[in-house]
Amino acid sequence: MKNPMKTMDRRDFARLSALALAATRLPAFAQGPSTSPTGAATLAKPLGFAAVGLGIISDIFTQACALTPNARVTGLVTGHAAEKAPRYQQQFHIPSSSVYTYETFDHIRDNPTIEAVYIGLPNSMHCEYTVRAAEAGKHVLCEKPMAISSAECRKMIDACKRANVKLMIAYRVHYDPTWQKIREIARSGAIGEIQGFQGGFYGPSMKGWRLDRKLSGGGSLLDLGIYPMNAIRWVLGEEPSAYRAFVSTMEHSPRFQGPGAVEETVEFMMKFPSGILATAGSSYGMEGPCTLTIDGSHGHIRVEPAFFYTGLKYTGVTKNGPIEGVSPGKGNPYQFVFEADHFAACVRNNTQPATAGEEGLADMLAMEAIYKAAGAPIA
Amino acid sequence: MKNPMKTMDRRDFARLSALALAATRLPAFAQGPSTSPTGAATLAKPLGFAAVGLGIISDIFTQACALTPNARVTGLVTGHAAEKAPRYQQQFHIPSSSVYTYETFDHIRDNPTIEAVYIGLPNSMHCEYTVRAAEAGKHVLCEKPMAISSAECRKMIDACKRANVKLMIAYRVHYDPTWQKIREIARSGAIGEIQGFQGGFYGPSMKGWRLDRKLSGGGSLLDLGIYPMNAIRWVLGEEPSAYRAFVSTMEHSPRFQGPGAVEETVEFMMKFPSGILATAGSSYGMEGPCTLTIDGSHGHIRVEPAFFYTGLKYTGVTKNGPIEGVSPGKGNPYQFVFEADHFAACVRNNTQPATAGEEGLADMLAMEAIYKAAGAPIA
Repeated sequence: MKNPMKTMDRRDFARLSALALAATRLPAFAQGPSTSPTGAATLAKPLGFAAVGLGIISDIFTQACALTPNARVTGLVTGHAAEKAPRYQQQFHIPSSSVYTYETFDHIRDNPTIEAVYIGLPNSMHCEYTVRAAEAGKHVLCEKPMAISSAECRKMIDACKRANVKLMIAYRVHYDPTWQKIREIARSGAIGEIQGFQGGFYGPSMKGWRLDRKLSGGGSLLDLGIYPMNAIRWVLGEEPSAYRAFVSTMEHSPRFQGPGAVEETVEFMMKFPSGILATAGSSYGMEGPCTLTIDGSHGHIRVEPAFFYTGLKYTGVTKNGPIEGVSPGKGNPYQFVFEADHFAACVRNNTQPATAGEEGLADMLAMEAIYKAAGAPIA
Repeated sequence: MKNPMKTMDRRDFARLSALALAATRLPAFAQGPSTSPTGAATLAKPLGFAAVGLGIISDIFTQACALTPNARVTGLVTGHAAEKAPRYQQQFHIPSSSVYTYETFDHIRDNPTIEAVYIGLPNSMHCEYTVRAAEAGKHVLCEKPMAISSAECRKMIDACKRANVKLMIAYRVHYDPTWQKIREIARSGAIGEIQGFQGGFYGPSMKGWRLDRKLSGGGSLLDLGIYPMNAIRWVLGEEPSAYRAFVSTMEHSPRFQGPGAVEETVEFMMKFPSGILATAGSSYGMEGPCTLTIDGSHGHIRVEPAFFYTGLKYTGVTKNGPIEGVSPGKGNPYQFVFEADHFAACVRNNTQPATAGEEGLADMLAMEAIYKAAGAPIA
């Protein structure tokens, strides 16, 4: 993937974002932005997305679509249309004929304005709606974690292959220019040979379906631990060969009680064939930093906050002295605009997404291995 | 132990340190300082130490003795007297009759000016010289790690008990007022219930006897990993009940080759009966931060650098808002003065050192469990 940092600057992004957001408040005949704030090439025709599940994450993704000429929200899938659809319909000029329920979902097949789906559902529904979307001939951009088991991930990959549609997992970190730069520095030899990682993502305020194993498939690991894990695998371009892990639940609140409860905290270690050791963790109950440190033989880089939507910072010591940087992105949709631009370009140019289904499967295999190493239930 | 922070201030310490260091440069009849910069009570008579092994650490410890009225260097034990002894003899007015070799070591029994030994030898010699010192009727202040096996630690404890002498392991972190304050904050409930730790001590430039298993008993874990491990155990006052670990050697230099080589890097996890999870690591080859983060249900504290002699800093988020602090100590002997004052007081007042042999044994048991969990050789 080309590095959008090269064609974008912070001021441009802010200016274009402001313009685009203003445009979304204009009357129905107003046009979207003519160029993307990411610097991505403008495609001949935007990719039409149906947002599947209208929770917080779909809200952010659809706002990203409003910021780029390359994506357009053309359909909605929701179980609560009366309550949730009107706001989106108004902003994106979506006719009621393009609003579906989970029962009528398969009819998207007959809607040519919907070319792709963005799946922002609870984890346990990712597989079913990816397969159904593929069978309806639609491309799929699916949120992480890809699903709740590696078997499901394989089904999703197969279904999309059979239907000849693109499948991308929404690993927003891969598309963030600051993270791309950090990865480049780490791999350049500037900190010597990479030897280790320490990371964590601890988000104590989580609630809702994430705490219900039937819907989430697991606890903090699937939701938060996946971030340092995926970032480590991505920085290295290598797959772990051994795992160690502990799970723990210390909080004695109703959040973590009952037969469908998930674990509160996971700490895990991965060893790579090269000998690199990585440790990381996640929690729904402990309030630690959101961080990843990459250690080399001659320096290190720490990203903190590492996995927030914006405001990423890195500091480090390299062979050539100290380094530091801050993400130019401001506001929630930032990384999602890059994501939308990338996926739209993959569809239009018939290229493989940088984070295809295989990337989601690799993470799921690692997470299954981590739960197994901890002696904890899997999905 | 009382908190010396309450009786000391940064300016006092600096002023007294400067005076004391100046005093050590005066002619032989000059007196030492009349009060300790730590604020410790001045004992009726300083404790007379023989420094056993004249490497870097003994140099620092003896400089600490020069800064307090409670400790005095009254003897030397070295295999290189001609080369190493004169500087110490001159500074501390030590007659040649109080300079011993490892062969004549047991004669310290007959030297009433030597009441205690400070053992700054390679790890594999700690046990032998602790036992011999105890049998000569001398109190023992021994560097960490206590020894190279739990069996040795038990021998040392038994020998000191039999001889009715004090045994203290030189865990300098326990005596640092900044660390005492951090521990107090962590245990006060200010960050809620403690749930986890992430730490590391990575010192790539290590060389010499530390890389020779026969002398060191192990690699970076015994030398550096022991710091976060001991700090975690100390903050909690709880013993780990399960372990996970990896060792790795990536550096292909002569440092880590040959039959007596030690591991380069260890990453380990400890689970406590309360459910608390701790991860930490150490390395002789990778250049990561020296750090410990304590995570609670409502905040966290990070100490970084965490285990240097001076310059410690902490930052954090508590229920009452952000906190931060910096150690007032400057220069190498800082923590060692607290250590010397504490041990001297224990001897004079016949009280148990805060870091007795049992503390060293507990660490050694944990380190043996870590090596075992990693499938690595022990001692």
